[in-house]
Amino acid sequence: MEIRINDLIEKKKRGEALGKEEIDVMVRDYTAGAIPDYQMSAMLMAIWFQGMTDEETTYLTLAMADSGDRLDLSSIPGIKVDKHSTGGVGDKTTLVLTPVLAALGVPVAKMSGRGLGFTGGTVDKLESIPGVRSELSEEEFLRVLGEVGFVDAAQTKELAPADKKLYALRDVTGTVDSIPLIASSIMSKKIASGADRIVLDVKCGSGAFMGTLDSAKELAEQMIRIGRLAGRKTAAVISDMDQPLGRMVGNSMEVEEAVEVLKGGGEERFRTLCMALAVEMLQLSDRRCDNEDEARSRIEAVLKDGSALGKFRDFVRAVGGDANFLDDPVIPAKYKKDVYPVAEGYLTSCNTAQVGLAASRLGAGRSKKDDVIDPAAGICILAKLGDRVSLESPIAVLYTNKEETLPEAESLLREAYIISDEKPEEKPVVLEVIREGSGK
Amino acid sequence: MEIRINDLIEKKKRGEALGKEEIDVMVRDYTAGAIPDYQMSAMLMAIWFQGMTDEETTYLTLAMADSGDRLDLSSIPGIKVDKHSTGGVGDKTTLVLTPVLAALGVPVAKMSGRGLGFTGGTVDKLESIPGVRSELSEEEFLRVLGEVGFVDAAQTKELAPADKKLYALRDVTGTVDSIPLIASSIMSKKIASGADRIVLDVKCGSGAFMGTLDSAKELAEQMIRIGRLAGRKTAAVISDMDQPLGRMVGNSMEVEEAVEVLKGGGEERFRTLCMALAVEMLQLSDRRCDNEDEARSRIEAVLKDGSALGKFRDFVRAVGGDANFLDDPVIPAKYKKDVYPVAEGYLTSCNTAQVGLAASRLGAGRSKKDDVIDPAAGICILAKLGDRVSLESPIAVLYTNKEETLPEAESLLREAYIISDEKPEEKPVVLEVIREGSGK
Repeated sequence: MEIRINDLIEKKKRGEALGKEEIDVMVRDYTAGAIPDYQMSAMLMAIWFQGMTDEETTYLTLAMADSGDRLDLSSIPGIKVDKHSTGGVGDKTTLVLTPVLAALGVPVAKMSGRGLGFTGGTVDKLESIPGVRSELSEEEFLRVLGEVGFVDAAQTKELAPADKKLYALRDVTGTVDSIPLIASSIMSKKIASGADRIVLDVKCGSGAFMGTLDSAKELAEQMIRIGRLAGRKTAAVISDMDQPLGRMVGNSMEVEEAVEVLKGGGEERFRTLCMALAVEMLQLSDRRCDNEDEARSRIEAVLKDGSALGKFRDFVRAVGGDANFLDDPVIPAKYKKDVYPVAEGYLTSCNTAQVGLAASRLGAGRSKKDDVIDPAAGICILAKLGDRVSLESPIAVLYTNKEETLPEAESLLREAYIISDEKPEEKPVVLEVIREGSGK
Repeated sequence: MEIRINDLIEKKKRGEALGKEEIDVMVRDYTAGAIPDYQMSAMLMAIWFQGMTDEETTYLTLAMADSGDRLDLSSIPGIKVDKHSTGGVGDKTTLVLTPVLAALGVPVAKMSGRGLGFTGGTVDKLESIPGVRSELSEEEFLRVLGEVGFVDAAQTKELAPADKKLYALRDVTGTVDSIPLIASSIMSKKIASGADRIVLDVKCGSGAFMGTLDSAKELAEQMIRIGRLAGRKTAAVISDMDQPLGRMVGNSMEVEEAVEVLKGGGEERFRTLCMALAVEMLQLSDRRCDNEDEARSRIEAVLKDGSALGKFRDFVRAVGGDANFLDDPVIPAKYKKDVYPVAEGYLTSCNTAQVGLAASRLGAGRSKKDDVIDPAAGICILAKLGDRVSLESPIAVLYTNKEETLPEAESLLREAYIISDEKPEEKPVVLEVIREGSGK
């Protein structure tokens, strides 16, 4: 029988589950333009209300993963692991994780995005290193992966075009905030980019898409279930995004902070999260490494002996960059400004998205797709939630080459923090680790 | 603050009510093409799930009524009443009601539609009378109304274009079956066509859009509440459509049956429904007529004394038709065929839509918009639900000019009826009358 989108909309509207063939046809026809946007948006809204079973979500994931090219990593020996972050402010974990895993012999083929809105993108951060090229051909991508042991670049080809088209539609039809749609969108790209194992960093808090721990866990568990059904072992770390990650927000500033960790130092919360993610990536990919403590000590070792940093230098060189820049990865900005708190007391909460926005205004991000990033611009954050601040000590320093952006960024930043007399409870950066079988 | 459709979708999705201005802007912008279909269909699906308050439904109704021209009936003295049927098989009540009310001094300006699918349209029925023109200019429309006391024609101008555009979108996005959307669609057209009072014939059963009495009542009550909020006194008759109305299905055949009633005779159930609707129309429009019995006897009088039929003759003449045709309104068909029941027993239930489809196949209806109607084609139904039928007596006679349509129509008709050994309970044609204040 012919599958007609009208019938599928009715079915979903009534709360019935769609079958594999129905979802395959729907995704194929929508991608090909044979199903118009107005029918698909009605379907998306019906999904928003009725949800999807794990099977439906997996069918959708796989159909989107198969809607374009898939990256073929079979030429690279070993179990390939990928990592995905749901996006946050100051999130530079990828810069640490990829060389660490490569140093441990686990190949990582990472395709990263660019920043938009209040969130940064790994590709922008990498490109702040002089000479680094992020737009690689597929051949180059695989060559660097083979030579260095990891690669991190922009998408080489159109992965999951159905997801791209659906996401653009969801964005304007009130259907972004649906757990099965978010989960399938993320997982479809991960599956299309060829990974055998997936580690998810699901951010949670005022600078994340998921505001609450419950919703972050729900999303993580949904993605782990998709991973299981799709034959891609998946684990998730739920991490705190109620304040920026680490001290630095801004592209070359974040490279600097990542290099600190690769040199064995670094800000504590940021280092802790890198460790947690690396432990999951290693445990998933290396059958010989079957306990957390062992994983941890092997990771500590490649940070200590410089081999992780060495991998990062190798990578920078392989993509045309100046590895010596990493010795002192600082790009000076013309203007800097200390930001003082609005009151004395304890930093109690932070509108993290607003901090991201302040950095973006300084030149570190984009508000439109074709805005140009200033690698030197950003914010160095001097105080964490729970710290006592006084009117005499700055809580942050702004850096920019556009002086006129300072006043707005300053007020955005000052007003992002709530200060009170009571010391708030401290929140760990790793809120939860969810592995297959540990969820519901 | 600027009203953005994205925000409105979010609001409705969360179950909040939209305000008057928000709905006005939405309807205006959608009609103007400033809101794309894909956003409106997401909104419609959110409305399907969340419903609308009476106020929202009324705002939507009025915004759609105001989206194009409104018919101005102020030049015609008196309280104008309009009647709307939700559509069924064999429904020719309009042909009776309009002259009856005119004979009672109540002006009726009726704009009717053409048939599509299994339902007939009054315009097609009228046009089966030789010479009758249904496409009138607005000037003609008002002139006939003034001279005759009623007019019944196709739409003279674009009434409620927003409704037309929204309906087309609902039709392909699974959002037709929403009570507030159906109610506002119907009421917007009635309000745009200038009526002061509205009587609704809400059909219920296997040949109607509303399958159950509960859903029919819900729709009727919703429209009455809109009528109250919009200052248009409204009443509704819920009528049975579990079998065709009257004996005739087909255009000139239905004119013949309507004329029987106008001559004081007619099939009982059909006549009963005409009476019930006429009583409501008269009571709503004539302040001096304040009880049902009086209304009934005044209506009986204009049927008996021939003045209602006289009005119909006047109307036919006024729109270019041959009034003498009404003396014996039969158009012979080339082919006729008796249809026998599949078994002996009691006619227990009828798939009424399928009977309508059978008539349509014979040439009485359209399956596509530009199909040409054969006025002579149709079905004369010889048995009612509850009748005992035998294999020797036909239950219906098919008429057509296309012999090749007979076999399919015959089997559609035969299989439309379920026959059993037990006599089913009889169902009256008027299931309920709902007046303002009598509903919830």
